Formats: sequence, structure tokens, C-alpha cells
Amino acid sequence: MKIAIIGAVAAGTSAAAKARRTNKDAEIVIFEKGRDISYAGCGLPYYISGVTPSRYNVVMNTAQDFKEKYNVEVLLEHEVTKINSEDKNLTYKNLKNGEEGEYKFDKLIIATGALPIKPPFEGLDLENIFTLRSVESADKIKDAVKRDDVNQAVIIGAGLIGLEMAESFRELGMEVTVIELQDQVLPPFSKEMAAIVEEHLKEKGVNLILGDGVDHFEGQEEVEKVVTGSGKEVEADLALLSIGIKANSKLAEEAGVEIGETGAIKVNEKLETNLKDVYSAGDCAETTDLLRNKDIWLPLGSTANKQGRTAGENAAGGDASHYGILKTGITKVFDLTVARTGLTLEEAEAEGTDAAVVKIKAHNHASYYPGTDDIHLRGIFDKENGVILGAEVVGGDGSDKRIDVLATAIYNRMTADELFQVDLAYAPPYSGPKDAVAILGMVAEKKL
Amino acid sequence: MKIAIIGAVAAGTSAAAKARRTNKDAEIVIFEKGRDISYAGCGLPYYISGVTPSRYNVVMNTAQDFKEKYNVEVLLEHEVTKINSEDKNLTYKNLKNGEEGEYKFDKLIIATGALPIKPPFEGLDLENIFTLRSVESADKIKDAVKRDDVNQAVIIGAGLIGLEMAESFRELGMEVTVIELQDQVLPPFSKEMAAIVEEHLKEKGVNLILGDGVDHFEGQEEVEKVVTGSGKEVEADLALLSIGIKANSKLAEEAGVEIGETGAIKVNEKLETNLKDVYSAGDCAETTDLLRNKDIWLPLGSTANKQGRTAGENAAGGDASHYGILKTGITKVFDLTVARTGLTLEEAEAEGTDAAVVKIKAHNHASYYPGTDDIHLRGIFDKENGVILGAEVVGGDGSDKRIDVLATAIYNRMTADELFQVDLAYAPPYSGPKDAVAILGMVAEKKL
Repeated sequence: MKIAIIGAVAAGTSAAAKARRTNKDAEIVIFEKGRDISYAGCGLPYYISGVTPSRYNVVMNTAQDFKEKYNVEVLLEHEVTKINSEDKNLTYKNLKNGEEGEYKFDKLIIATGALPIKPPFEGLDLENIFTLRSVESADKIKDAVKRDDVNQAVIIGAGLIGLEMAESFRELGMEVTVIELQDQVLPPFSKEMAAIVEEHLKEKGVNLILGDGVDHFEGQEEVEKVVTGSGKEVEADLALLSIGIKANSKLAEEAGVEIGETGAIKVNEKLETNLKDVYSAGDCAETTDLLRNKDIWLPLGSTANKQGRTAGENAAGGDASHYGILKTGITKVFDLTVARTGLTLEEAEAEGTDAAVVKIKAHNHASYYPGTDDIHLRGIFDKENGVILGAEVVGGDGSDKRIDVLATAIYNRMTADELFQVDLAYAPPYSGPKDAVAILGMVAEKKL
Repeated sequence: MKIAIIGAVAAGTSAAAKARRTNKDAEIVIFEKGRDISYAGCGLPYYISGVTPSRYNVVMNTAQDFKEKYNVEVLLEHEVTKINSEDKNLTYKNLKNGEEGEYKFDKLIIATGALPIKPPFEGLDLENIFTLRSVESADKIKDAVKRDDVNQAVIIGAGLIGLEMAESFRELGMEVTVIELQDQVLPPFSKEMAAIVEEHLKEKGVNLILGDGVDHFEGQEEVEKVVTGSGKEVEADLALLSIGIKANSKLAEEAGVEIGETGAIKVNEKLETNLKDVYSAGDCAETTDLLRNKDIWLPLGSTANKQGRTAGENAAGGDASHYGILKTGITKVFDLTVARTGLTLEEAEAEGTDAAVVKIKAHNHASYYPGTDDIHLRGIFDKENGVILGAEVVGGDGSDKRIDVLATAIYNRMTADELFQVDLAYAPPYSGPKDAVAILGMVAEKKL
């Protein structure tokens, strides 16, 4: 059996590794357009700041490692240009020498990832305007920030990557301005929780321009200024465009793979596309919102990893499923942990649910134990039955614990009362006798 | 309405506060034998070591605070000597002046807590042999360890308190020996997980004598030596007896309150005893093992707090329930977090379950982000349906998160596959793309 995989980042390499564990005889080949495989996309902000010291740390495997470890051939700088799903055949181009070739497969996994969105801003082709997606793009940013005359960073977009990079640039001693079109940071979060993050960013010396977008970039050869829609001019030695990404689904679409309404590749829980023996996984593929049983596209490393693993097992003759996600996401913004899971209030209401918002502030652990910190929790509850539908957390250490407990609670359709009943671990360094989650449940129960 | 509460620690004060919130007009009186109220029993090891700097930190309320905050009368050094449940009347003794009195109640909450077990060891009445239960007992230990000639501590019992105090005494620069009758530390834990803790204790300079108990204490006025059953002689300037506690249920029993097989007070999910209008909560009361639907006694602060709250609400005319626990427990042992929840292998097998043990080691978060640490997870799964029944965690930062997620999973009877499916939060500072819990689920699924 021959398994071809397009793309060698999270989904592609997970797929290859699991395919090998499932089938020790298959020929497995990965075609990767870039020069790195299996890199930690989510680690790039830490690589740039130096918190993660070396490139070697974020590029976890070389093609050779992968060959030795899994007996999987990784063809770097090999771009797949065409898929023929009827003949089970793909055409690729070796970017190093321009040569073309063909590969016949029995099973194909498309893991082509996503691409940064780059609107046609005037001045976008100036030097020192970056996007962050690959290790190569991180290397370019790292080179730029090393220069003594690069001190002012302007970040376009206050999503997860935008804010992680704000921290990263501040760590490097730079002046940082974040410009966001929405009137809050982290648009998937509620305004009240985002406001806590905004306050913290300001305390950490980040300039925020909210409710305003980029109009154009100015400069000679390099970017010197970002001009916003409202006419604000922000000096910049470097600009980072992090306004979002889009599924890299063109190759698949040309091959007749069905594309969902989201623009990403439609897959079922087996990670099968509409074409026989063609799978897709990772940032180019859709997934299912488990709470609404709805196809969505939310490209995250955790999902890519699980989808890749599932596609790999199935392609290799196994039988695995990945049913979908709760849209759980987390990020570190300086000293704050900011995380969410489940439905937003707006999503719950759009489903016809009479929903209540419950917000509490609790301590991460016993107040007499060192390192006490506030944790803000915001839950969305179904008024009819008390079931928790969504949650947001903003706070200090231990915030990640609460979002994972709440994600598990939401997965299980737990009620407010059950959040009080569930027996979470208590000792002074870890929690209060009533955990923050239990307090959220108590307050919700009273309100409902 | 008059509500009397006996005991002013976790359960009693929670009950009083919730009773007041439920009923603003009731007369609420707490009778407390000791001199402190509302203290954090679980914080005492940190108070002794100085990690928690002042007595004020662990005694969170004074009787006067409580009066002002909740309009609840707290009578300190008032010991209740008799309960007459038919006449709804109790007799108390003011320990300050020896005077006796009576109090008529409409509702009574018994929260008399637990007492340290003190077997009749020879030499037990020597000076500098302590138990740790109240703030007063902590004060005595604190006074003793201040002395220049008190340098060698011997702890009898390697349970949660014993090991927390081992850390505490080491923090104070003392030599520490822990003697435990079982052949492992933390007897409720499996041997393989306990072994990791034992290794860590040794690294931290704690001497362990396992599978050996105290025979007697020797000394002139003060303890000088602990002699074990096997004849080992351990020099001691101070000994701490932490071999366990027993429910303080004698007063209740004399009043006709039903005592369960565990020796603690039998209660239902409303925290009612067999006697009308008499409730019990906290360390003197039983609770229910949710997984086996069985009365158990496992005195912990988290349960005391929830039971107290529930009893308080019901006594004051509300309607609340606390259904039981999963036996979740956690402790910090130097740099390790050690926690468990759910059934042990032995308990699962005793229930007739064909159970499998799955043990994994994973990282707490991305290996390229600073502060990576190992987390050992051990799960007990039902082979028939893949449901997780119990779990243990030993590891670094983030171990508490995993036990709380697993407790929530066990509460919901999740399967191994669901541990993989549930969408936990991933970013490099918090987790790997596949969380340790997901890995446990994956490995379990493969094994089952």
C-alpha cells in the first residue's frame, strides 16, 4: 500500500506517524513544499522572543529523523501541483531543481494547512512587513529584530498570534502598537473579558488602537509608518500582519475535493473527503462543532494533531474517528492566561437557547499560600436546564486548569449544580476548598 | 427560628454563613470548644514552615468578624456536653469559667470534626510529641521548632499530613525521618506511583522507614528516641503523630444519632441524620462514594465545606443536596504534586469489574517552553466498556490540572476514547498538542 501525504507540519506528520504504527509495510511519502517539517507553529512567538532558545527546539524532527524513526520518506521543497483522484496519481515539482514527477498512491492525505490573509494594502510590498506562519517566516522576523534600528513594532490584528507577538516583541525591548479593526482585542471573547486583557496589555506597555484598521503602509524601501483608516499615523520599523489565515484548499478544490461553506475542505469524522481514498486533516480541513453539530473551520494545533492521527490510522487500514471540537482555545498574554471553550452567548442565542451569563472572580488557590491570583470566569448557561454551554477564563496561574475542567464539563453537558457537586482536588497550593469552577456553578444555580 | 451549630471550623462556619444567606432572620449560634474559628486546617503545615507567614493568614475570621459579617454568635471555648434531640435542647459548658448552660434550638448542625488517633504507645506522654489538628497544636509545634536544640523530627505516618509536615520541617532546616507501617508512602496510592514520591523524598533528604511502626518512645522529660517495631532506634527532638484521625462522633452517638459502619455520623444527601432537624457535616460525618453508591468516611476540607454549606441551607429552610464524592485528594510533596481520584484497582476489582491499569508519562507542556516537567498518569479502566474509574497523578506543575480533568471525566463516566476526543486547551505554556489526558485515553484505548 502506498500512502501519500501532502504537507509535513502538525497534521501531516501526525498522520504519517500513526499510519506507520497502524501499518508497518505501507510505503509512506510526505510531500512538503517548505524546508522544515514537523515544526511547532504555536511555538514560533517564543522562538522569536528567545524564550525558546534555539531553532532546533521548535523544529522537532528533520526529514532524516523522520525517515529513521518512522520509515517515512519526506520530500522537502516538493510542491504537489496536481492531484488526479481517479487515477490515484499526483504531480509534484521539485522546487530545488524545477523537475517534475508523478507519484501513484493508494491513499492520499491532504494536509496543506493554511495561509496568512494579506489584503492588498498599499505599501504591503515594503521591506520589514511580515506574516508569521512557518519557521522560515519566524527566521526573517528574528533577523529583522536583531537590527539596532528596528525598535518599533506594529502588529495588525489582536487575535491569539497578534497578542503573543506583542508579548514577544516587548520581551525583546521593542515598542509595540497593536491595531485591531474590532473594538476589542481577541474578538471571539466577550467584551467584558477582553477588557481585562486590554488593561493588562496597557500595563505592560503595549499601545492599543482598537476599532481602527490599516489603510496603507508608507516607507522608502522599508516600512516606516502604518496609516490607519481613521488617519492615525503609527511609526514602524517592522509590521506584522496577523489578521487571520485562510484554508489552503485550492489544490484540493482543483482536484474535485468538496469545499465546505467555510472555504476549508469538507471531511467526515473519519477525515474522509468526498473523494474515495482521499483524506484531509489539519488547518486546511473543516471540523465539527460538537455542541451545534455544525461544520466549522477553526484551525488549531490540537485539532490538527488529532485529525492527522485519525486520518493516518484510517488511510493505513485502521478505523478511527475524530468527532469534532468545542472550540477550546488558550493563550498566554504576558502574566495572564486567556482561554475559552464552547459556545459564545451570541452563538447560544442564535441556536434559540434562552441563555444566562454568569461571571465570577475567585482565587486560583488558598489566599494564605504564596502566589494567589485572581481568576475571572464567565459561563454561558442554558436557563431551561442549567446546562453550561460555554466559558471564558482570564486570570493568573491555574486558569488553564479551569478551562480544561469546564471544557470537560461542557463536553458532558453538565449542569450548574453538577459543577458544584463534582469533586475537584483541594489542597492550599492548588485551589480553595470550593474551587473556582464550583463557585461558578453555585452562583449560576442561584441565578438560574 | 434558632439554629445551633456545634463546631466552628470548615463545616460549621460554612453552614452558618449559608444558613444566614438562606434565612436573614434566624438566630444562629455556633458552640466551639476551641479558641479559634474558621481556620484553614489544610494550611497548618505552611503556617508551621513559615511559607504562610502569619497566624492571621490561617485563621481567616475571628468570632467578632463572623458576628459582624453574618450576624452569627460564636461562643468560643464552649463545649457542648449533651444533646437532647427530643426537647431540642443542648447543654454546654463554658470552659473559661466552668459554668454550664442550656440552649434550645429548632435545628441543629453537628460539625464536631475529627480527632487524631493516638495509640497507647509507651512514652506517648513525653514532651515534644505532637499531633497536628488545630491552630493551637500548630502553635505548639511552631514554638518547639524555634528552639536551637530541636533539630531532628520524626514523623509517624506517611499520609498527606505526614508528608506535608516532612516538607515543612525540611524547609525549617531540620533532619526528618518518616516512619510508616505500610511498605509504601501514601497508602491510598498504588505502589508504583508511591515509589516515585519515595524517590523524591529521599532526594530531598527525608529518611524513610517503611513497613515498620512505632513500638515506643523514649526520653527523660522530652522525647529523645523513637523505637520501631523492628527495633530501629531513631533519635528525635520532636515527634509528630500523624497516623490518622477518627470521627468525633461520641456526643452525637450519645444523643441517639445513628453512626455508620465507618464510625462517623450517617447522613443522607440533605445532610440529615436519623434524628429530625438534626444535621451533620464535615469531618464527623460520612459521605457517599458516588462511583460505588456506598457510605464512606473520607474527611477532607473540600467535602466539609460543601457539606457544611448544604446542611446550613437545609437547616435554614432551603433545599440543597450534596450527593457525595469521588475521593479526590491532592498534596504537594516538595516539588511534586501527588493526587488521586475515583476507585483504586482493588476497589474496582472488589466491585466485580474487570479492570485494566494504564500508566503513561507525558510532559506538562510543550518541551520547548521553559519549565517542562514530567507528569505520570495512572488510570483504572473498565475493560468491558472503556470507562475510566480511577486515576492517580504524580508530577510537576500542571499535575493538579490533569487530576481535576480526570475527576470530571470520572464523574461523567467518560470512556478512554472520550478522553482523546474532549477538546482540551492547547498552547505551548499549558500543554502539548495532545494533552497528557488525551494520551492516557489513547494508550488505554489501544490496550483495552
